[in-house]
Amino acid sequence: MYYVLLSGGSGKRLWPLSNEARPKQYMKVVTKEANSMERCSMLQRVWEQIREAGMEEHTVITAGTDQMELIRSQLGEPPIAAEPARRDTFGAVLLSCAYLCSHMGASEEDYAVLMPVDPYTEGSYFETLKSLEGIMKKSGAQVGLMGVVPSYPAVKYGYMLPGERKGDYLEIQGFEEKPGEERAKELIEGGALWNCGVFCVQIGEILKRALEYGVPKDYEGMFRSYEKLPKISFDYEVLEKARHLAAIEFGGFWRDLGTWDALADQMNTDTIGKVLLDETCENTQVINELNIPVAVIGGRDLVVAAAQDGILVAEKGKADRVRGLTAGLSARAMFEERRWGTLETLDDTETPGVSTLTRKIRIYDGKTSSYHYHKDRDEIWTVLNGTGELILEGNKILLEPGKAVCIRKNQRHAVKALKNFEYIEIHVGTSVGNQDINRITFEWDEIELSHIL
Amino acid sequence: MYYVLLSGGSGKRLWPLSNEARPKQYMKVVTKEANSMERCSMLQRVWEQIREAGMEEHTVITAGTDQMELIRSQLGEPPIAAEPARRDTFGAVLLSCAYLCSHMGASEEDYAVLMPVDPYTEGSYFETLKSLEGIMKKSGAQVGLMGVVPSYPAVKYGYMLPGERKGDYLEIQGFEEKPGEERAKELIEGGALWNCGVFCVQIGEILKRALEYGVPKDYEGMFRSYEKLPKISFDYEVLEKARHLAAIEFGGFWRDLGTWDALADQMNTDTIGKVLLDETCENTQVINELNIPVAVIGGRDLVVAAAQDGILVAEKGKADRVRGLTAGLSARAMFEERRWGTLETLDDTETPGVSTLTRKIRIYDGKTSSYHYHKDRDEIWTVLNGTGELILEGNKILLEPGKAVCIRKNQRHAVKALKNFEYIEIHVGTSVGNQDINRITFEWDEIELSHIL
Repeated sequence: MYYVLLSGGSGKRLWPLSNEARPKQYMKVVTKEANSMERCSMLQRVWEQIREAGMEEHTVITAGTDQMELIRSQLGEPPIAAEPARRDTFGAVLLSCAYLCSHMGASEEDYAVLMPVDPYTEGSYFETLKSLEGIMKKSGAQVGLMGVVPSYPAVKYGYMLPGERKGDYLEIQGFEEKPGEERAKELIEGGALWNCGVFCVQIGEILKRALEYGVPKDYEGMFRSYEKLPKISFDYEVLEKARHLAAIEFGGFWRDLGTWDALADQMNTDTIGKVLLDETCENTQVINELNIPVAVIGGRDLVVAAAQDGILVAEKGKADRVRGLTAGLSARAMFEERRWGTLETLDDTETPGVSTLTRKIRIYDGKTSSYHYHKDRDEIWTVLNGTGELILEGNKILLEPGKAVCIRKNQRHAVKALKNFEYIEIHVGTSVGNQDINRITFEWDEIELSHIL
Repeated sequence: MYYVLLSGGSGKRLWPLSNEARPKQYMKVVTKEANSMERCSMLQRVWEQIREAGMEEHTVITAGTDQMELIRSQLGEPPIAAEPARRDTFGAVLLSCAYLCSHMGASEEDYAVLMPVDPYTEGSYFETLKSLEGIMKKSGAQVGLMGVVPSYPAVKYGYMLPGERKGDYLEIQGFEEKPGEERAKELIEGGALWNCGVFCVQIGEILKRALEYGVPKDYEGMFRSYEKLPKISFDYEVLEKARHLAAIEFGGFWRDLGTWDALADQMNTDTIGKVLLDETCENTQVINELNIPVAVIGGRDLVVAAAQDGILVAEKGKADRVRGLTAGLSARAMFEERRWGTLETLDDTETPGVSTLTRKIRIYDGKTSSYHYHKDRDEIWTVLNGTGELILEGNKILLEPGKAVCIRKNQRHAVKALKNFEYIEIHVGTSVGNQDINRITFEWDEIELSHIL
């Protein structure tokens, strides 16, 4: 039995804390244990639960290549199936199965359980997952599912419609998405289950679909031909066409933390960050990632979130509207977390003929950048804190607080953090930000030095 | 007849938009005319109304010396009586009267009307003020007042208690501050008026009080001895002790914009700045001075204000609590407006042994700084936009986008903006911000040049 954590998605429903560069599953807003005050991301919480369930050795995380650095900065070096492009969930499932066979020792006869990265649940969830293999064999189903026993008539979830009960599993006849509250009550009376997005397949059954699109079944081959796969969901391509579905039931605690409403209710504190919550507030949670304080007076049933991308004030129950409301906003992320450190945009000024970008950059001790140059911008760096080394056109320069360096167009440079290294980087030119990065070598030790200054 | 606009006060009740460096009366949140979309400050609106009433030639603005630059940047060169220290309203009234005699041609027999800078009212308010001189002469009162005819039983205002009516004025028997709603109704039935903070005195009667404290009656003399005056209010020192008070009535529209509740209700739009207001919001106003968007969903009766100093989310009717809630916050203003331009703090990082401050500075075309140096910090400047000139240790340097300059400790420097000049200034050292500025000369033309680079 193998497991796949599907960690794609851009998390637009959790604006402004999540963005393309840091989707919701990497936001540090939950805790590993109920009474802990130490915050972690949803990914870190789920990974810890997988480890405790003893499933770590058989689990791969599937995510876009742009999220590799972030996953490694949060988890170390877990197995990752990297999606070179977005191809919706059908492509992600195919690539995950290919990775399991090519790199984790799975065979085509083995079963894989695919699950979303953002359930907020308890340890028994993972124990229940383990029984899916037995159900697949016993039922002969094409797809195995896990349904959550509803604890209230939720209108925001999808429901699985039960058929015949066969001992420890249920036949599933179909699905119904987000019913009204009355309909949800009827469904629950009829034994329907919440669809928590978990499914189990036999790896070979899935991999043979790759050939239909002219894509090889091995991971490296599929990676190279990934663009050939259609942009369709697993639900559409496989689940809805399957004639035989079987589900096990999970009766424990489970919530989807994909919306502000759900997330705010699971925080074990009302405030995160610099927040002044007046005593007149009721049922109000505030998350502030900015350096300036947020004061809330008389808030009732509110979620307030402030981050480098923007500020949200939303009444609970309506926070889902954030995705539509913010759809037209510029996509440039104001805060980015990378394997090597963080980038915070402080200012972004465009005038005719010249663009500028001012960022505060922290690099973790010992981390390095590639050796690269920019064709269309100058960069002016000023060190705020700690120590680092710059290699500029082959010369090594020590960087300390107050040191400033101008890196002109076409000058090759690389940086290494020694200790607590923070600096301000100002881009001035016609290409600013994460574009116009022309790499010569990725490895610090391969840079040729002319001088040591 | 002379007029005084009392423009003191730090505006803590309008946090985060107003701060010590930019009190509420200078915030650009109102409009000059009802249907105009062009925003102006309360000071600019009132000054325009004074001009329209033909009172401009006889009006002085009284404010702290730290507000001179701000007033000039908003109004040009109006007469200003500058308070060298804070001495509450009694001192401000004395200094205003001294200025009227020393610089505006008033005699001690003349009358002066003193009024707050932040009423939100209509033109007839100023016409009504003009009748105070006649009332003073007719009644022989020590202090003349103007009362607003109440339009509802407000609990947030003070009331004047009427005595006998004498033709076109009322004798006033006393005052009652912020009554409950029931009491307010009783007061209104009894003919009480809202106290809008306007009073009229004979200049000589006030000026003779200065001598009691050993302070000269002329403006320059009083300015130099200002510290000798007690920190007490005009209400306490004069009004409450006066045996004879007479008031005229103003029946037009008047509101005190000193709180968020009042201010939000007078905005002629629900949003100022980058704001996404969802259609589910009701009676909600949002002012955003930040560069990042504020999205509000399902807000009911809310005021949301975001500025460089912080973010406020408050239910209307409770916004008054902001002053207490934010009392413990650091006083450093994140946005400052000066005569010569603006200062925006982007980052503020302190580590043991070294403090840093990153600010974006705009200087208006043609404006200059003093020639000065810093003992305990380096400054690294990077030009973002426009052109300027730097004099560094007697050398003149042209500043253009992408140009970076390190100004080390003890290096004398001055800057002049030529056109659209904006730059990032990073302070690194043990003294950052508005301290450690050691001036050699204030005038650009007096700086001795060694070279023109």
